[in-house]
Amino acid sequence: MPLGERAGDKSESRYCGVETEFNDDMPQLLAYNISSGGFDFVVATLMDPSYRPSLVEKDCGGSGVLPFAGSDLVLSPSQWSSHVVGKISSWIDLDSEDEILRMDSETTLKQEIAWASHLSLQACLLPAPKGTSCANYARCVNQILLGLNSMKLWLRIPLWKTDDDSMDVDSNRLVDSWELWNSFRLLCEHHSQLSVALDVLSSIPSPNSLGRWFGEPVRAVIIHTDCFLTNARGYPCLSKRHQKLVTGAFSHSIQIVLSGKPVHSLPKGSSDLAANHDDSTLDGVQRHPLRSYLDYIGYLYQKMDPLPEQERFELGYRDFLQSPLQPLMDNLEAQTYETFEKDAVKYIQYQRAISKALQDRVPEDKASRMTTVLMVVGAGRGPLVRASLQAAEETGRKLRIYAVEKNPNAVVTLHSLVKLEGWENIVTIISSDMRSWDAPEKADILVSELLGSFGDNELSPECLDGAQRFLKDDGISIPSSYIPMVEETCCVEYGWTCFLDTPRVKSHKDVVHFETAYVVKLHNVARLAPTQSVFTFTHPNQSITKSNQRYKKLRFEIPCDTGSAMVHGFAGYFDATLYKDVHLGIEPSTATPNMFSWFAIFFPLRTPVIVHPGSSLEVNFWRCCGPSRSQSYAYVL
Amino acid sequence: MPLGERAGDKSESRYCGVETEFNDDMPQLLAYNISSGGFDFVVATLMDPSYRPSLVEKDCGGSGVLPFAGSDLVLSPSQWSSHVVGKISSWIDLDSEDEILRMDSETTLKQEIAWASHLSLQACLLPAPKGTSCANYARCVNQILLGLNSMKLWLRIPLWKTDDDSMDVDSNRLVDSWELWNSFRLLCEHHSQLSVALDVLSSIPSPNSLGRWFGEPVRAVIIHTDCFLTNARGYPCLSKRHQKLVTGAFSHSIQIVLSGKPVHSLPKGSSDLAANHDDSTLDGVQRHPLRSYLDYIGYLYQKMDPLPEQERFELGYRDFLQSPLQPLMDNLEAQTYETFEKDAVKYIQYQRAISKALQDRVPEDKASRMTTVLMVVGAGRGPLVRASLQAAEETGRKLRIYAVEKNPNAVVTLHSLVKLEGWENIVTIISSDMRSWDAPEKADILVSELLGSFGDNELSPECLDGAQRFLKDDGISIPSSYIPMVEETCCVEYGWTCFLDTPRVKSHKDVVHFETAYVVKLHNVARLAPTQSVFTFTHPNQSITKSNQRYKKLRFEIPCDTGSAMVHGFAGYFDATLYKDVHLGIEPSTATPNMFSWFAIFFPLRTPVIVHPGSSLEVNFWRCCGPSRSQSYAYVL
Repeated sequence: MPLGERAGDKSESRYCGVETEFNDDMPQLLAYNISSGGFDFVVATLMDPSYRPSLVEKDCGGSGVLPFAGSDLVLSPSQWSSHVVGKISSWIDLDSEDEILRMDSETTLKQEIAWASHLSLQACLLPAPKGTSCANYARCVNQILLGLNSMKLWLRIPLWKTDDDSMDVDSNRLVDSWELWNSFRLLCEHHSQLSVALDVLSSIPSPNSLGRWFGEPVRAVIIHTDCFLTNARGYPCLSKRHQKLVTGAFSHSIQIVLSGKPVHSLPKGSSDLAANHDDSTLDGVQRHPLRSYLDYIGYLYQKMDPLPEQERFELGYRDFLQSPLQPLMDNLEAQTYETFEKDAVKYIQYQRAISKALQDRVPEDKASRMTTVLMVVGAGRGPLVRASLQAAEETGRKLRIYAVEKNPNAVVTLHSLVKLEGWENIVTIISSDMRSWDAPEKADILVSELLGSFGDNELSPECLDGAQRFLKDDGISIPSSYIPMVEETCCVEYGWTCFLDTPRVKSHKDVVHFETAYVVKLHNVARLAPTQSVFTFTHPNQSITKSNQRYKKLRFEIPCDTGSAMVHGFAGYFDATLYKDVHLGIEPSTATPNMFSWFAIFFPLRTPVIVHPGSSLEVNFWRCCGPSRSQSYAYVL
Repeated sequence: MPLGERAGDKSESRYCGVETEFNDDMPQLLAYNISSGGFDFVVATLMDPSYRPSLVEKDCGGSGVLPFAGSDLVLSPSQWSSHVVGKISSWIDLDSEDEILRMDSETTLKQEIAWASHLSLQACLLPAPKGTSCANYARCVNQILLGLNSMKLWLRIPLWKTDDDSMDVDSNRLVDSWELWNSFRLLCEHHSQLSVALDVLSSIPSPNSLGRWFGEPVRAVIIHTDCFLTNARGYPCLSKRHQKLVTGAFSHSIQIVLSGKPVHSLPKGSSDLAANHDDSTLDGVQRHPLRSYLDYIGYLYQKMDPLPEQERFELGYRDFLQSPLQPLMDNLEAQTYETFEKDAVKYIQYQRAISKALQDRVPEDKASRMTTVLMVVGAGRGPLVRASLQAAEETGRKLRIYAVEKNPNAVVTLHSLVKLEGWENIVTIISSDMRSWDAPEKADILVSELLGSFGDNELSPECLDGAQRFLKDDGISIPSSYIPMVEETCCVEYGWTCFLDTPRVKSHKDVVHFETAYVVKLHNVARLAPTQSVFTFTHPNQSITKSNQRYKKLRFEIPCDTGSAMVHGFAGYFDATLYKDVHLGIEPSTATPNMFSWFAIFFPLRTPVIVHPGSSLEVNFWRCCGPSRSQSYAYVL
């Protein structure tokens, strides 16, 4: 039974699991925890915990049967795959000094994984590495991953980082469990089926440190009953920090798993729950001993705000890498125009900017006599033409519009729009590339929407420099400037594995495809340091050289309490000034609200880089221009 | 409105289209032909047929608007994509001697395809090449295909082949339109978005010749009203040959498109239909002039038998290439066992064979005293154990069974099955590989199901030779023999393009992956010559060398009236004798009915080969064995 209904949320985080002890009777285990207990799945031990391969008589031929919990037929295939996550025996220790234990561990691990694959389980929970060294464990898991079906492996990792800066180098004590995960994952070569199940303890690291995990492939957060506090009425509840972790998990499609025995004595008649674990009843109905903990998690889920409309639209795009559009080279399709035209917020901003420009250009007393010449360069199917006419109507100014569009298919729509709306006397349609058009007169205002996710990456500077020759010397360009920005160094683990799996990248394992920027709805990311501006472009371009080449060196400082992190690339945004105080932008802290035309751009690093606490990362950014081809970026650490 | 309901059929052939004249009013065109006419889609001319780029004034700047039918906004995106197939101007001739016509044709073709892409249409119909030479047309289409979105291109090809063998070499006259398609498709490098729309004429080629087309990517069959005969009541109907073509189209997901003006004067008050084309009404309701033709096509569709259960199950697998299972190397998963265990027919055949063997082995009068030792080698989760026990019960014979299985996960199920059914005294489970097991006694009967689609390709001969040492000298093996067979030379165009698109093949463009056999539900194939046996394997193996190496040369004769065809590979089947007259097989003409455990195997040719009428194709087949590794096949033309 899902935790609740949250409008728009279809993620797996609605389903809550429970960690169970070994039970040979799987149907009973499911009935107890799922049908009556209210959980959605069990994390169930697959094999009798007393089993050790070395204790099985060697000479019994091959007739031995492995002591698994039930046979495959005790549950239906769909019950196995939707309600059971396999828990690998927690006693295994593949890096033990004891050779027998080490060999037994490897054999058992492989047998249990083979059994889980046989059952087509969706995932198995691997026990946390026993010490700080995990080389043999990781080697063996890597070998398993290479032959695995679609099953996922969740590596259990305690969520632990000391804030103590005086690191005792001699000590073998675990200081930051992220380091443990990182070395394990590196030995498994970033395999996309390996992910993390975070074991939450009663104390939680600092927010900066915790934030790193949202850039990692965390699939589950395991909360032990020990973590719960007691509220005024005697019921379990969580600290603010724990609550924040749980809601963070909900919005990152991470599932919660409850673990442990009940430690709260509930008030009223149910106070014997903790002691009487298995057959406690309340009003004659059997009540699961962890029910009050589950109810609290459900309460946290239901308390969340519904998913905003925009985020629902973007769900399918999260962490999905796309090649940026190249509208100058390729003509957009009708459906692409349709999508972008729906971004009302963007055109309202344009209309506001045009209104202000018209008012500045033509004083109120001359409004009825003076006609402003406005050119929409890259008019598409006409949304900016409409915004301009609305601005004219709003301000009472008179307009003559030239709508310049190079896509002959969009020109067809523009024509019928102008006819339908009766704009023939105001709007002239020009089916041409703005760079080659021979304008019959000069413009007062030049309006364009050529911005890409990084501002200048769809060749806006080059196009507008080309169109500038038909703008009056004192004419206005809307937008008047834009600033590409690079966010912090950022860490995208999902994005990274997706990226490595992207057919384009995989099929050409070359530098070009690793050094291409991608458009992506960043979601599973850790933002490690604040955004910085990279370049600035201003229109009309008054610079003497009119060059659009740029170079900038940036330095990102990682806060000390974050701990180490792996940097996979840089997130790019833009902020544009349309006119005076009317801006348009997608940098998270200053983004125009409810606008969906742009996702971020992502500049991947060919080899991810580990940054250590308190250290800084320097990156050089170039914008390079060729005589005929598109601009390109280069970046070097 | 689909042609009708046919249980199990979800293919596109339920939808029928109509070819229409140029009409600037697309909404009216759709209302007339779809909403009231009953068709599902229109094949509509996209551009004014009088348009010629060379006639447009050169000096009008870039302000001209292309004369398309409507703008993209006159229909919704989903109307465009589900109800309109774009018809490219039929006047275009890219191989004309007239340079102006040739240039105009190329420009128009590109403009229309760009417009159709802009609208996200699913397909465009390209006019048939004008002569027998189509090099420039194909070059231009190939160039378009390389930059196309997901839209398909249907090349119109008249369905034509003279049965006249006295081919006049001098004549430029088209003898076999398949040749035209073949050269066009070769120039477009088998592009998967290029397919055929067959233009049906009143005379139809021979069945052998027609059969070739079901191995080609035919998407539509266009039937002109001229093709229709008139039935006794004055209504349109089709000849038997035409009917067979139409039902063949239905079962190959090919859509019917009606074309032309009505040529039947319907009886009663509707006799003025033909003359009064556009506003004919019947009982006050406007009736589409082609309605009686559409009704007849619907009648043919509804008359078809419902899709059998087995074919419904196999729908999703049609022409989909899979790597053969390797149960000796990889352990099967529970769900795979589950699927194969459901094949009741197979186990009934096994039970029949075991019954006969038991009766031959033990005379009726000794039935109560003699116990037969039966070994199931490769027992899996137990279906053959069950079949054996049922055979024993049916015949009143006594059994002692050894169930040998190497997969420890299946052994778990076997154990619980034996316990559940109370078979402990009869069945002994051996968790071991049959090749290494040390049997405590010898068997009377050895039962196995190790057959692959090609019989021996899952190493049945090697495994059974290994197990033969614990079979009594006069013991029986079930199966007792099997014959891999190669069908005809066969031509799989869809399979071929799928094959080329298969990631495994694409990512390693090497010989190994082209010379691997694939398991596939053959559907879109042409069977060009009868099946031939390749090898024979018998158990117990009494040959002196006991070698399972084999070599055979086969010669396939293509019937004269077929015409030329392209051979992409060979289909492989098996026929097995389980015991005496009980057989099991998948060769189409002798296949065991309603059995679904095996699809055919497909041996692709790295380079498809064209065979000409009356010629023969020789192929050499080898079965090679290595000391430790799997067997392999080699084949050379």
